[in-house]
Amino acid sequence: MGTNKKTHDEFQLIERFFSNFSFPASHGAAITLGVGDDAAAIQLPEHLELVFSIDTQLADTHFPVDADAGLIAQRAFLSAISDLAAMGATPLCFTLALSLPEYNETWLAAFSEGLRHSAAALNCSLVGGDTTRGPLSITLQVQGTVERNCSLKRSGAKNGDLIFVSGFLGSAAAYTKLLQTNRLEAPDLQHAVELFAASYYSPIPRIALGTALTTRAHCAIDLSDGLFADLQHICKASRVGAQLNLDALPLLSELTHTFGPTEVQQLALGGGDDYELCFTVAEERRKEIIKMGEDMECPVTEIGRITDTGNIECYSNNSIVDMSHIKGYQHF
Amino acid sequence: MGTNKKTHDEFQLIERFFSNFSFPASHGAAITLGVGDDAAAIQLPEHLELVFSIDTQLADTHFPVDADAGLIAQRAFLSAISDLAAMGATPLCFTLALSLPEYNETWLAAFSEGLRHSAAALNCSLVGGDTTRGPLSITLQVQGTVERNCSLKRSGAKNGDLIFVSGFLGSAAAYTKLLQTNRLEAPDLQHAVELFAASYYSPIPRIALGTALTTRAHCAIDLSDGLFADLQHICKASRVGAQLNLDALPLLSELTHTFGPTEVQQLALGGGDDYELCFTVAEERRKEIIKMGEDMECPVTEIGRITDTGNIECYSNNSIVDMSHIKGYQHF
Repeated sequence: MGTNKKTHDEFQLIERFFSNFSFPASHGAAITLGVGDDAAAIQLPEHLELVFSIDTQLADTHFPVDADAGLIAQRAFLSAISDLAAMGATPLCFTLALSLPEYNETWLAAFSEGLRHSAAALNCSLVGGDTTRGPLSITLQVQGTVERNCSLKRSGAKNGDLIFVSGFLGSAAAYTKLLQTNRLEAPDLQHAVELFAASYYSPIPRIALGTALTTRAHCAIDLSDGLFADLQHICKASRVGAQLNLDALPLLSELTHTFGPTEVQQLALGGGDDYELCFTVAEERRKEIIKMGEDMECPVTEIGRITDTGNIECYSNNSIVDMSHIKGYQHF
Repeated sequence: MGTNKKTHDEFQLIERFFSNFSFPASHGAAITLGVGDDAAAIQLPEHLELVFSIDTQLADTHFPVDADAGLIAQRAFLSAISDLAAMGATPLCFTLALSLPEYNETWLAAFSEGLRHSAAALNCSLVGGDTTRGPLSITLQVQGTVERNCSLKRSGAKNGDLIFVSGFLGSAAAYTKLLQTNRLEAPDLQHAVELFAASYYSPIPRIALGTALTTRAHCAIDLSDGLFADLQHICKASRVGAQLNLDALPLLSELTHTFGPTEVQQLALGGGDDYELCFTVAEERRKEIIKMGEDMECPVTEIGRITDTGNIECYSNNSIVDMSHIKGYQHF
């Protein structure tokens, strides 16, 4: 039990692998101090609000420990950024607290490269961090900006709102399911596995969609705990209920072909890690939202409606279906 | 290897132990969204800069795993806040990424209480977080504010500057030394152990001192890696050297009575975790700084001078002393 002193080598590694992560800031925000001091500093114009979120990913809990380090970095970064998208915010900068069992240069080089690649694509600068020696763990705090009083909250859903989701559901969970059941190498599943792996390791933070929704949606959340759990967060925060149309859930055909119907429902409703947006809008915006999704080449699908009950009710063929067997489903 | 989905119990525990951590913000900054959404949000008046820093503490690396949970929380929080003090910033809010091996309610209640107590004393609100199941680890990101372009950096030290430190050196390291050598229970050391334990578990973030230094000091750093290592950070960032007067180091008499002279030097120069400020000021400010320390009841001690060499030279009785045996000392 020592202190948190770092060795000379550690300082050198930080410099070597985590410098040069500076990218242009947007919207007039400025990073006035980055990596290398006691803290980072930013300045914001007064029309902006700062939005930030912290997320931890642990080896073998959130990602396979032997996965490619670049993919691990990418997934950790993009899933963290997804929280900004859900607020309608634009990424500005991030900090990284990295715990490593050993200073493996090859691993660090790949991790750093994956992180830099993802961060550069979003102009999101690394501005600070902490490295410790311990079980592999990645904590990121992402900072973004949104016009003042425009952020998308979980609490704005209104009775009668339409519920939409972006992208497809269950694909990331399908990857972990195949991994857990040792089916990643199954010859007939290679095309599907590729798609599921992309969903798992390269989730698309819906930044542009989130930004567009700040003036259109009543609320939004990103799907990290699974549609059921996350829609419940919206319902609880907004004090509403929801009707879900199970027949409308956007599913890749590779998902429905690979798994049986019950498994598909579990993956789509209970599977987390899709990092798609779930949001609600007034009914009169239906056409506008669908057109917006088309223009952005971001699939958006209407999957249900907000109600004034305190429950989520699921429908299929216009009949109520009991979904209480789905993991992630909770009465509240 | 699953996803990062949380169980119902986990959500309830977050609500139970980590809500009601809201305190008044100062300087016109506003927390517009706290715990419970995808992200937190803050608004800043344009005269302020936001300063933030992330820190991880791992069980048995940074604190004894069986220590009181309230003390663990307090130490993690105060040491993180110390980075804000070193920038001259005032605490505003923080996020917490907590990894726990199990959901132990007694432990969480004590942890939460220690954290709340420390945070309340500094009006620093908890605005977001993440809980995961894994090896005990605490990552905090602290946010603070400072007047624009006034933050204290490591890079401003000038040739001829006087070097000051606040408080006393080596006391926190003395605690870990006694812990490691099974001497915490030694009957003749109980008074000293109490003092060292206080330094270790209740470091005093020098917020008021840091704020006052924004208009007086050329640079500052908080002592987390040990005086040698941290002074080297200043020298490297400022491209200067330093002369240290070993006879002037502020040491508790309990330190010099408990340890032999070599150990005392190791603890004072190489021991981390004091979280005192080391800062440099122009020579003409000597009296002003000493008076300021007295007025604040914060001991400040002149311990050396910045030079234009690239080295730290140590003096005792006006003679150069070779300190290369001190762990934490590095030529650069």
